[in-house]
Amino acid sequence: MSNLKLPTRAEDFAEWYNQLVLRAELADYAPVRGCMIVRPYGWALWENIQQALDKRFKATGHVNAAFPLLIPRSFIEKEQSHVAGFSPELAVVTHGGGEELEEPLVVRPTSETIIGHAYAKWIQSYRDLPILINQWNSVVRWELRTKLFLRTLEFFWQEGHTAHATYEEAEAETRQMLNIYVDFAENEAAVPVIPGRKSLSERFAGADQTYSIEAMMGDGKALQSGTSHNLGQNFAKAFNIRYLDKEGALQYCWTTSWGLSTRFIGAIIMVHGDDQGLILPPRLAPIQVVLVPIYKNDQERAQVLEAAGKIRSILLDSAFRVRSDDRDGISPGFKFNDWEMRGVPLRIEIGPKDVSKGTFVFARRDKRGKEGKYSVPLQDLAGATSKALEDIHTSLYQRALAFRQANTKDPRDYTEFQAAVEDGFAYSYWCGSSRCEQQIKDETKATARCIPLDQGKGEGVCICCGQPAEEKAVFGKAY
Amino acid sequence: MSNLKLPTRAEDFAEWYNQLVLRAELADYAPVRGCMIVRPYGWALWENIQQALDKRFKATGHVNAAFPLLIPRSFIEKEQSHVAGFSPELAVVTHGGGEELEEPLVVRPTSETIIGHAYAKWIQSYRDLPILINQWNSVVRWELRTKLFLRTLEFFWQEGHTAHATYEEAEAETRQMLNIYVDFAENEAAVPVIPGRKSLSERFAGADQTYSIEAMMGDGKALQSGTSHNLGQNFAKAFNIRYLDKEGALQYCWTTSWGLSTRFIGAIIMVHGDDQGLILPPRLAPIQVVLVPIYKNDQERAQVLEAAGKIRSILLDSAFRVRSDDRDGISPGFKFNDWEMRGVPLRIEIGPKDVSKGTFVFARRDKRGKEGKYSVPLQDLAGATSKALEDIHTSLYQRALAFRQANTKDPRDYTEFQAAVEDGFAYSYWCGSSRCEQQIKDETKATARCIPLDQGKGEGVCICCGQPAEEKAVFGKAY
Repeated sequence: MSNLKLPTRAEDFAEWYNQLVLRAELADYAPVRGCMIVRPYGWALWENIQQALDKRFKATGHVNAAFPLLIPRSFIEKEQSHVAGFSPELAVVTHGGGEELEEPLVVRPTSETIIGHAYAKWIQSYRDLPILINQWNSVVRWELRTKLFLRTLEFFWQEGHTAHATYEEAEAETRQMLNIYVDFAENEAAVPVIPGRKSLSERFAGADQTYSIEAMMGDGKALQSGTSHNLGQNFAKAFNIRYLDKEGALQYCWTTSWGLSTRFIGAIIMVHGDDQGLILPPRLAPIQVVLVPIYKNDQERAQVLEAAGKIRSILLDSAFRVRSDDRDGISPGFKFNDWEMRGVPLRIEIGPKDVSKGTFVFARRDKRGKEGKYSVPLQDLAGATSKALEDIHTSLYQRALAFRQANTKDPRDYTEFQAAVEDGFAYSYWCGSSRCEQQIKDETKATARCIPLDQGKGEGVCICCGQPAEEKAVFGKAY
Repeated sequence: MSNLKLPTRAEDFAEWYNQLVLRAELADYAPVRGCMIVRPYGWALWENIQQALDKRFKATGHVNAAFPLLIPRSFIEKEQSHVAGFSPELAVVTHGGGEELEEPLVVRPTSETIIGHAYAKWIQSYRDLPILINQWNSVVRWELRTKLFLRTLEFFWQEGHTAHATYEEAEAETRQMLNIYVDFAENEAAVPVIPGRKSLSERFAGADQTYSIEAMMGDGKALQSGTSHNLGQNFAKAFNIRYLDKEGALQYCWTTSWGLSTRFIGAIIMVHGDDQGLILPPRLAPIQVVLVPIYKNDQERAQVLEAAGKIRSILLDSAFRVRSDDRDGISPGFKFNDWEMRGVPLRIEIGPKDVSKGTFVFARRDKRGKEGKYSVPLQDLAGATSKALEDIHTSLYQRALAFRQANTKDPRDYTEFQAAVEDGFAYSYWCGSSRCEQQIKDETKATARCIPLDQGKGEGVCICCGQPAEEKAVFGKAY
């Protein structure tokens, strides 16, 4: 417990992030390099993310299951692009039960292969399709440069894996899940995102098409925050996932996969956080409302704690997630700072005067100082809390959107482009060639984050080579 | 999809179990020896188990977190009994990112060590205590003889890990969690259990005291269905988990751990199942009510499907988990058998006559034939469903308890003891010596399952050696 100041975001955004994650007790470093412990506060946030997504998955007909952690190494090698993409990142189990294994096993980096193997067994006829399965688990990828939540050796996620009779169905599923990620990001996390297609170089290893949602962080960099892949028949052919169609002919299935991970917690931190610390979006915040009793002596203490207990009950009855900070020997000012740093969206201050007047001070986390403070009479408490949380959600979303818009440029030439991607996005025509993409990367460190789905039919010239181009891409530096 | 008959339980209990798990699509074998895939129907059951437990954990002040999957091998070696118990079962990662690791990592077999390491860092003062953390995850133990749900290389569970200032608090926590397991088993799963202390030889590797809940399966064998360990200061000393007490003196913490796993699904199958298949306890069943429309022509079909839709809405409104089996081209008889095999507790039959009369046939899964069938008028549907599910819960519990009682003997001598543990439990005085326990095991294959907590102060003579004994133990063959 400490009230030390964080570095400001302007001073050192990376250090602000690292210190904040540790100090807010979202996560901690594990003894194994690059692994993390997700602490209870961070995990409660993840549980709320899980619920928000799981509800959407189930509403669209998906079911959960659990596939094994250990995959025969040979499985990874069955799909050509998959092995090329994942081989360098594998953790390999060579010994089990004190003996060397005949075939090494890998700790899953993702589960297309082992699920493909199962689907090949389970699917016989068109009647077995579609299969719509999701799983919540962790995966391991041997990353060299790691950062809590953003890139860790082990991370937590959900991975959906579906099999369909036709390309059209698989493509519709891929897009449906992308839309679910957009809906989740914007309506639960208040994080505006750009849904789009990935360029060839950024595609998932083994996919025909990868879609992603991209968000702009508080430093102007992009974070890929969820992906949805149309895997075509690549895994179906590698694992022999086939079905008998209505005419009795054997056909390969079309498969998809889609995932969103604890990386998204990084997005929440970097999109909404300010120099005081976290600002958690109200619909996902583990604690939505913190009550801080203020008193100078035992008599006042008894009085305000009684009021705090009453307010807590009222808010719990309305299903808000509320915490009353009754810690003794710690000043209200310290508590204010502490809960601000931890990003609780709404604070209610309960002093002796408030109790006698029957009105209580609300302090919004998203607006500092007097601007975010106002009094609410006891009888309006539940309604005012609901309204405050909704307002905070909207204001966080609007602020993040305005920030992204202000930092997204439509550069007229390559010089303006270079300036734009320095600390923001450029939205520019691109010829689609890997050559231009590489040149841009070499010269600016920016990459094509995605080709937004929502763009009118237009024409222009590639910002890099000047050749005719039909689509715009969002370029930016990426986490 | 097949309606092939299962072997009866009397014919071959083990084969009945294996076939049922596969045929009901609870789980499947994975490509890696001894690993399992938990299929959507099995996982939905596990999700309901998770919710029932998680609610109880949170109500008693516990929070969830996530600790890493990979543990430095040296950690396992820090606690003397722990390493002896777990070393032979470890899966070892020797390579990561294409290179041999300096120190091998193990895939967690359980997390006392890595959590102990974190607690040592997080705990400074008595103010930081107690720490009450749980995690839902999977662990890997290199078992030689495996069986779906009962013993697999990877299994799914929750593991709670707490740290306290005193022995008394740790012991109270250990017992509280044991009681939560009893409450869960009996009131959610309708599985009667015996809570008790484990003998020395059955203690968790590193615990001062292990408690367990033991259930009798349909073949008279015992299944350890949840454990709670008082770890004393063993892990605190191995990992240096210390706190400053109120007087400023440095003290070692007292820690506990407790777990319940997917093994419990095995208990549900083997306690309640019959020769027709699963019988799932209503409070945990993924599908509580199945609606089977019965029709002979298109006109009847339209009529009964409309009624089925209406009934489904009524039941969904009352928050029952309901499925309407509208599959075409499959006979009602086949559907009856199919859902009986899958253990759905209540079936509602919807035929043209039922629709015209406005009454519907309820068929209870726990009572075969006419005994379990009765008519319910439409207006009573929700209430009657609620009552039926409650009745089924109670009847399953009573039946299992009666079965256990009928198959638990209080043998007068060692000959009767040997007969009793052949296919049931013996509840006998035991001197507590490992020597007698081993002799019993060698001669009967039975072991001391637990020393029940709920036994009067009594005295007798050890069923094996005839020496004076103060406590009775439950003996039986174990899974």
